[in-house]
Amino acid sequence: MTETEPLTRRLDVISVEECLQLLESRSIGRIAFVDHGRPQVRPVNYRFHEGSVVLRTAHGTWLDTVHLAAVAFEVDAIDADYHTGWSVVVHGKGEEVWRPEELAAMRRLPLRPWAPGTREHYVRIHPAEITGRRIT
Amino acid sequence: MTETEPLTRRLDVISVEECLQLLESRSIGRIAFVDHGRPQVRPVNYRFHEGSVVLRTAHGTWLDTVHLAAVAFEVDAIDADYHTGWSVVVHGKGEEVWRPEELAAMRRLPLRPWAPGTREHYVRIHPAEITGRRIT
Repeated sequence: MTETEPLTRRLDVISVEECLQLLESRSIGRIAFVDHGRPQVRPVNYRFHEGSVVLRTAHGTWLDTVHLAAVAFEVDAIDADYHTGWSVVVHGKGEEVWRPEELAAMRRLPLRPWAPGTREHYVRIHPAEITGRRIT
Repeated sequence: MTETEPLTRRLDVISVEECLQLLESRSIGRIAFVDHGRPQVRPVNYRFHEGSVVLRTAHGTWLDTVHLAAVAFEVDAIDADYHTGWSVVVHGKGEEVWRPEELAAMRRLPLRPWAPGTREHYVRIHPAEITGRRIT
């Protein structure tokens, strides 16, 4: 049995320019990474700052796993009832920020980590690839 | 500089029983998997059916990548302003459902895929591990 969706819904590719605007418009996303060969995903607060996704985290969390490793970062806004919305995915390498002048700039961002506790490490994802799709 | 969060926010572990209830209460999640060594993440509609996460998809998408592969599936409800909410992560193997009697049961689920198009394949994630956290 094959069922075709009604023509009222359509999938559109979102331009990179608009993807960047959408990334700037939100503050919660999900980061996916590979931990000992196993996929892992979790929600994070973020800011899109000077072309990069910036996250704040603590030692002993997933910091070591994403540093210099490939990560995927996803942001979306989806209407569960109408099945419309958009999703933007960034691929890139996670990179812990350690240069004092860069750290100082990141501490000025309105960026609070999702989980409570002491979170004084910053991870930057510089996009190597940005893709977005919208269902209208 | 070390900044400690105010004591008003707390991270609690959610019991497996409650994680199951939370999985049943939602219909949009994010699936993460490893595609040629690279993490991938995308939003999906799902139903929690008889103890498993059930997704609907098409051939030529990520179906082949997640079949018999480790996946992570995440559901959350997060308040961006108050930084409170919960997140549940399921780890398990993706498995395409092909037995006719099981397929018939899944076609009766109120499960519409996020992206439009012909989506007549069903993937089941039987949880090998369920973890949940809540920020209050």
